[in-house]
Amino acid sequence: MTVAIIMGSDSDWGVMKAAVDTLKNFGVETELTVASAHRTPDKVHDFVKNSSAQIFIAAAGMAAHLAGVVASLTIKPVIGVPINSEPFKGLDALLSTVQMPGGVPVATMAVNGAKNAALFAVEILALQDDTLAEKLSAYRNRLATEVELKDKRLKEALL
Amino acid sequence: MTVAIIMGSDSDWGVMKAAVDTLKNFGVETELTVASAHRTPDKVHDFVKNSSAQIFIAAAGMAAHLAGVVASLTIKPVIGVPINSEPFKGLDALLSTVQMPGGVPVATMAVNGAKNAALFAVEILALQDDTLAEKLSAYRNRLATEVELKDKRLKEALL
Amino acid sequence: MTVAIIMGSDSDWGVMKAAVDTLKNFGVETELTVASAHRTPDKVHDFVKNSSAQIFIAAAGMAAHLAGVVASLTIKPVIGVPINSEPFKGLDALLSTVQMPGGVPVATMAVNGAKNAALFAVEILALQDDTLAEKLSAYRNRLATEVELKDKRLKEALL
Amino acid sequence: MTVAIIMGSDSDWGVMKAAVDTLKNFGVETELTVASAHRTPDKVHDFVKNSSAQIFIAAAGMAAHLAGVVASLTIKPVIGVPINSEPFKGLDALLSTVQMPGGVPVATMAVNGAKNAALFAVEILALQDDTLAEKLSAYRNRLATEVELKDKRLKEALL
Amino acid sequence: MTVAIIMGSDSDWGVMKAAVDTLKNFGVETELTVASAHRTPDKVHDFVKNSSAQIFIAAAGMAAHLAGVVASLTIKPVIGVPINSEPFKGLDALLSTVQMPGGVPVATMAVNGAKNAALFAVEILALQDDTLAEKLSAYRNRLATEVELKDKRLKEALL
Amino acid sequence: MTVAIIMGSDSDWGVMKAAVDTLKNFGVETELTVASAHRTPDKVHDFVKNSSAQIFIAAAGMAAHLAGVVASLTIKPVIGVPINSEPFKGLDALLSTVQMPGGVPVATMAVNGAKNAALFAVEILALQDDTLAEKLSAYRNRLATEVELKDKRLKEALL
Amino acid sequence: MTVAIIMGSDSDWGVMKAAVDTLKNFGVETELTVASAHRTPDKVHDFVKNSSAQIFIAAAGMAAHLAGVVASLTIKPVIGVPINSEPFKGLDALLSTVQMPGGVPVATMAVNGAKNAALFAVEILALQDDTLAEKLSAYRNRLATEVELKDKRLKEALL
Amino acid sequence: MTVAIIMGSDSDWGVMKAAVDTLKNFGVETELTVASAHRTPDKVHDFVKNSSAQIFIAAAGMAAHLAGVVASLTIKPVIGVPINSEPFKGLDALLSTVQMPGGVPVATMAVNGAKNAALFAVEILALQDDTLAEKLSAYRNRLATEVELKDKRLKEALL
Repeated sequence: MTVAIIMGSDSDWGVMKAAVDTLKNFGVETELTVASAHRTPDKVHDFVKNSSAQIFIAAAGMAAHLAGVVASLTIKPVIGVPINSEPFKGLDALLSTVQMPGGVPVATMAVNGAKNAALFAVEILALQDDTLAEKLSAYRNRLATEVELKDKRLKEALL
Repeated sequence: MTVAIIMGSDSDWGVMKAAVDTLKNFGVETELTVASAHRTPDKVHDFVKNSSAQIFIAAAGMAAHLAGVVASLTIKPVIGVPINSEPFKGLDALLSTVQMPGGVPVATMAVNGAKNAALFAVEILALQDDTLAEKLSAYRNRLATEVELKDKRLKEALL
Repeated sequence: MTVAIIMGSDSDWGVMKAAVDTLKNFGVETELTVASAHRTPDKVHDFVKNSSAQIFIAAAGMAAHLAGVVASLTIKPVIGVPINSEPFKGLDALLSTVQMPGGVPVATMAVNGAKNAALFAVEILALQDDTLAEKLSAYRNRLATEVELKDKRLKEALL
Repeated sequence: MTVAIIMGSDSDWGVMKAAVDTLKNFGVETELTVASAHRTPDKVHDFVKNSSAQIFIAAAGMAAHLAGVVASLTIKPVIGVPINSEPFKGLDALLSTVQMPGGVPVATMAVNGAKNAALFAVEILALQDDTLAEKLSAYRNRLATEVELKDKRLKEALL
Repeated sequence: MTVAIIMGSDSDWGVMKAAVDTLKNFGVETELTVASAHRTPDKVHDFVKNSSAQIFIAAAGMAAHLAGVVASLTIKPVIGVPINSEPFKGLDALLSTVQMPGGVPVATMAVNGAKNAALFAVEILALQDDTLAEKLSAYRNRLATEVELKDKRLKEALL
Repeated sequence: MTVAIIMGSDSDWGVMKAAVDTLKNFGVETELTVASAHRTPDKVHDFVKNSSAQIFIAAAGMAAHLAGVVASLTIKPVIGVPINSEPFKGLDALLSTVQMPGGVPVATMAVNGAKNAALFAVEILALQDDTLAEKLSAYRNRLATEVELKDKRLKEALL
Repeated sequence: MTVAIIMGSDSDWGVMKAAVDTLKNFGVETELTVASAHRTPDKVHDFVKNSSAQIFIAAAGMAAHLAGVVASLTIKPVIGVPINSEPFKGLDALLSTVQMPGGVPVATMAVNGAKNAALFAVEILALQDDTLAEKLSAYRNRLATEVELKDKRLKEALL
Repeated sequence: MTVAIIMGSDSDWGVMKAAVDTLKNFGVETELTVASAHRTPDKVHDFVKNSSAQIFIAAAGMAAHLAGVVASLTIKPVIGVPINSEPFKGLDALLSTVQMPGGVPVATMAVNGAKNAALFAVEILALQDDTLAEKLSAYRNRLATEVELKDKRLKEALL
């Protein structure tokens, strides 16, 4: 079980590190590459065609074509992460990623939603892996516990 | 293998029929329900908790909370379809669906992207089902052939 | 007379403190909790169902479902405060909060409009409480006096 | 118990009729007027100052100042309904209504959200009126029943 | 000949100082006041009704009703300056100022366009004052000369 | 006293007729021309330089440069009317007209705000013409009376 | 001298016919194909790599990746035409086409700007072809004459 | 072979320097001027009419009319660079530049896309200059090599 993560630029690493970290925390293998849909179309093509990953996460900013290009090259699930960049704050990347025409879907996350991209990949893999499913349930419980803790701390601070 | 489709309103059926039809064409079982995050929160809760579906597709318009509410109740993959409605043409539904906070992902499709939601569900299921994977490849080939055909017809018409 | 304030995250406290302070200045009891529509749906459910508050103020950012979820669980007035967050500056939260479908209203304030949420709650409570109504009138007079004072200071500074 | 409804133009009646009808269904007295913040500022002033209503609903399109102007003249709760009009589809009216500065709140509904404005007014009045509260609960139950019915019909139609 | 400048808040002074300075440079009398459409509606009313100014410049942010309210109270030309404020960067103020309904015009400048508001007022006054017209022509010539100078400096710097 | 009206295209006439009609109703002379900033820059230049009008109204859609180009050629007041056109519904025309840089103001009206452009021109001319000022006051009274009438009719219809 | 025109879908032909017609009117050879960046990536690749065209015009709607993908495969000038489609009226296509990262430019036209795409291609070719340059000058003159004619007709109609 | 670069303000130099540098790197002659469509329309006119450049690059912010004005004065290719400025982050400049009416095209780059404007000019010139074409191919190869290098470095850093 491997999840491939493709970034359009190494400047996206600051955001996408959260995806890699999250996948590692769940014990999921990752395959990472920097490849640009516009500057290195052949590299994107070869990477997607040769990868043994089950799921692709593609992150890009501005006219973010990367996820769509990856999706055009594979029938594996492709998760798109629009990257926030100046001046349009990721609105360009969001629309470029989510508004795919019928036939070639990209599962789009929030702008800079790297962690959720990883979690969604884990949710897919957990369909075939009960251990992962248990880890996901535990993760959700931890999320809830953290909210409880923050709630408690805030109330104490206000006393 | 079942994909559940939840619509916030029966008026979404005109759009979401394409998802059901697509899943049927791939031989995937569907479970359909109309349930509103705001008008019938308990129904949504019970449906998600009791469903044996492996994947949820949730469609809603305006302040489209349905996909997020479903995602908060399950660790199964949830695919969101923002529905185009007046006056904001689905921009409200898109942002309400895609901008999920860290921890609870929703895989968002284009506004009214019902067919792609179904195809993405099939892509996920195909990871465990080689026959589905072959059908997907065949589907992609048909898409390409159709484009070729349209190209040919347009050129002939222009002669 | 109690006003419940629910925040989707403790990071909203910086904004929502103004609501608590305003309510305290008017002598209105507050009940505060951190509860996320997505991370702790059960906590939101239990809080709303068990609260004895007459009015709910719900604050959340991004795909801000919290106010709508609260409104789906009660017939008490629910006031929504969209929280400003990167990258969409609260436009996502505003549309997610205000564009509620018919049947389940959320009274939406400006992005980060915590103080006005509190004042609106006081306006509602003042319908049954003449002392509160007098305090509100006095508050409005103070607002006007402050504007007069600022006007005077600016004119003096320009002499 | 009276709810006043002010419309900036009689062309808003097509939308706002739903508010009057809803209030009547709940047995709430309404006081209706057409008064423009820009064309008849004195009329708005006199109406608000002389009205015995407990709640104001103000509806306007474009640079929709009406709700804000009403709110500046009373400490009663003011509910704003942005009206959809060409070319900006109510985005101008929404921002003009919801983005009120601190001190003078307007409780904003969805664009064209006349029915919800009425329901929110009823929620406020129900705080002092148990019969109204029961009617609201019954209304919510009917909403849920209708969803159930639509769900059933759709499923039957698909058999 | 007097131009009145009304600001919704003294925090607008940082922007509007440019209008006062520009008017002074042209030798035009100014009358300055801080008055809020929402917090001090009576003050706005009295100021507009009693002012002997020939032109009004009104500046406000967010749901910027000030210019429209002033325009509803006078048949003198009203120039609106939308103020840039968080989070919507003046888009709310621009739409609230420019999208006036038929019958009551507001001449809207760019967001934070204080200097142009003053220049436009001077253009109006110059219709009845040849000396002002000459000063305006000279100002335009200086603008052109400054551009020439900047052009020259940049070219020299690049040699 | 003449007001010049320049339209970027004769297709703008459907909108701009209201400006001519309004000016005629006030007895103001108009000078009308179709001239495009992009297709006939020389014609725009010659028209503006040779016109004896005191005020210019310029209407254009899309990348609406016409009002700005006119303003660059004269120190007379220039009123801009952004025209609503597909696909961006006048948002492009509004921003292209209103966001003028410092030094060269354009007084911008609402999208398709032809009538208000004429009324604003009349407000300017009325500064030097008491008869026009009286007509404007009478016009405003008629506006108010019409609102009263509509109010009355609606109330009667509802009895 | 050939200009290649690639459309993402044959449904774009209604818009792009204007480009072919315009190029023919200037006597420029065209090479037309329907090829989708997402459904037929290989066809796009082969077409661009094998074409002898000097300039590419690429038209697509929604997440419009076509022009960017073409530009990644050639150093010939690529002109992008964003296509207007529901629900976002070409805003998605515009941002997906124009916001290209540094290194791989796409010359973007207005939404549905097929005619201008052709004219811009002619402007490029005219740099090496004096006859084309003369035709372009004549075309611009005709544009100006048409405006004059429309101006004349409107004035006559108003007499 | 010369490319003319016109900036609406010397403050655009920080962005446009990248265009000059890029053109120099390719050995293309540049002709640089600061000239404002609004402050120095005659200068723009004379510069365009007298320039011997084959291509024009025009950069401006806000209501960015410069590229359109240049295009109205020449049949040479005009490339527009919308400049990012407060408060609308270049959206105003983008729409003012790209939404040109039929007949007068402007080839629009991304907001602040100075480097791509230069590269696109080089692509045009390379149609008549094989050495430039080779340099462009080499440039694209370097882009690809840089991506490979960044990919390698990131992978090494993660080991």
